[in-house]
Amino acid sequence: MNLVIVGTIGLDDVETPFGKVSSVLGGSGTYAGMGASFFVKPGLVSIAGDDLSKEHRKTLEKIDISGVSFLGKTFHWEGFYEFDMNEAQTKKTELNSLAGFKPVLPDNYKEAKYLFLANIDPTIQLEVLSQTSNKPFVVLDTMNYWIANAREALTSVIKKSNLVVMNEGEARQFFKTPNLIKAGKMLLDLGPEYAIIKKGEHGALLFSDGRFFSAPGYPLEEVKDPTGAGDSFAGALIGYLAKTKDNSETNIRKAVIYGSIVASFCAEDFSLGYSKKVTLSDIEERYRVFQQIRNF
Amino acid sequence: MNLVIVGTIGLDDVETPFGKVSSVLGGSGTYAGMGASFFVKPGLVSIAGDDLSKEHRKTLEKIDISGVSFLGKTFHWEGFYEFDMNEAQTKKTELNSLAGFKPVLPDNYKEAKYLFLANIDPTIQLEVLSQTSNKPFVVLDTMNYWIANAREALTSVIKKSNLVVMNEGEARQFFKTPNLIKAGKMLLDLGPEYAIIKKGEHGALLFSDGRFFSAPGYPLEEVKDPTGAGDSFAGALIGYLAKTKDNSETNIRKAVIYGSIVASFCAEDFSLGYSKKVTLSDIEERYRVFQQIRNF
Repeated sequence: MNLVIVGTIGLDDVETPFGKVSSVLGGSGTYAGMGASFFVKPGLVSIAGDDLSKEHRKTLEKIDISGVSFLGKTFHWEGFYEFDMNEAQTKKTELNSLAGFKPVLPDNYKEAKYLFLANIDPTIQLEVLSQTSNKPFVVLDTMNYWIANAREALTSVIKKSNLVVMNEGEARQFFKTPNLIKAGKMLLDLGPEYAIIKKGEHGALLFSDGRFFSAPGYPLEEVKDPTGAGDSFAGALIGYLAKTKDNSETNIRKAVIYGSIVASFCAEDFSLGYSKKVTLSDIEERYRVFQQIRNF
Repeated sequence: MNLVIVGTIGLDDVETPFGKVSSVLGGSGTYAGMGASFFVKPGLVSIAGDDLSKEHRKTLEKIDISGVSFLGKTFHWEGFYEFDMNEAQTKKTELNSLAGFKPVLPDNYKEAKYLFLANIDPTIQLEVLSQTSNKPFVVLDTMNYWIANAREALTSVIKKSNLVVMNEGEARQFFKTPNLIKAGKMLLDLGPEYAIIKKGEHGALLFSDGRFFSAPGYPLEEVKDPTGAGDSFAGALIGYLAKTKDNSETNIRKAVIYGSIVASFCAEDFSLGYSKKVTLSDIEERYRVFQQIRNF
């Protein structure tokens, strides 16, 4: 397995100004795996319940799930977005089978060259990392909850990662500065070669030693549900890297654009709706739009 | 006079997390004129009091002030910025001599080919526009106050302008949508050929018929005082257009970058402090940085 992802599989209830859905497939691992699947077939390390519907299992077919345990009830998240849809508001979180999750990598996952530690408890991220044997290129994502409640473990994972992704709110929270340029540099100071700050509609910033890249946001007129857009971004990013096997800053710039494109498709529909419609050629079309919108 | 600007001259008291200044030179016309002065010497239509210090008058030497009346007390603004410095909070506004301002264009201003209607009462903007005789290329800026209190007059000016600039908050407020891409298109629907939405640290969006440009923000680590950055942006933008005499979308993209650069210098110091230090070669250096940070 070239690319391994650890993250959650969930059943979500989501309400946005554009509608309401119940028990749809979600979770950071699911969104990330689907994002990566446009470029390579990733292996997912996660846990889900026996209650996952046939349809949901079918959606997961683009991902190798031999690293997924099925046990009890699936992790459940309930949330909503206000008018401006900038931030998810959590109404309820039920860990269910995720509570006792002890990740075990199948043997063919251990030699992965690319590892994405998607948003999940940082102690689980550390455990997965420790089971790999081939010094993978490690991309890390997290969320405000772990910054507030598991800062020490999270800092350990950051130090062992090659590329760390945070959104702008998380970066400001972690580094206690309103200035994102400062926050990005402070993130690099912790050890990773690359730091990315996602800014939603405003694009993303990529920091590395002596270089800086500012990716525009894709000009979306319709955002229906931003859930999972960040996971899709990072999943597509590492999927593109795993496919091209090139971790240079120049190639990571391209990966950021592919990540932004997949995230833009994800936000245009509820849950993983986009994954049933979008093709690689749709993605390449938006890549060309990206080239046109930033030339001067 | 190739470029004429109408806007305010003010004396400002400003407090930011980085310091506090009193009775410094400010006003939309002043900031815009200074921004434009890197490219052409603009003529300013405005009013100030007899209380403007010698030093302040000296600062204004880069601008032709034969269109400025001096009478009574100068317009005064007092405001502050919170920790994140995203939006100015007004503590006090004293109109003073601005209250009775009736703009009269000197004869040599009337044939201007470029006109910047900087932030001021839209009825004054309309009056200045009506005194021009040479169908100038009109750039318009405004603020939340006029959107809330003079929407009709403002809409009239928008319809007579070639390029309208709003910041993201103003655009959302005017068009009652959180989506900036929609807001930009709605602005174009009112008549102007070009619409720009400024997003502060996140850059700027340029809309025109069938084309879209997303300019990155300059990666500033130190923002001391954002006052006047927006006026400087638009002033430098129209100054560059007036110098190059090319109103094509391709050239306006470049003008957006020059505007962003001058705005970035402006925000690094209080009041017009930057204008005493920054040269055209400093500006060209940041232009090269802009080219590097958006390549992929």
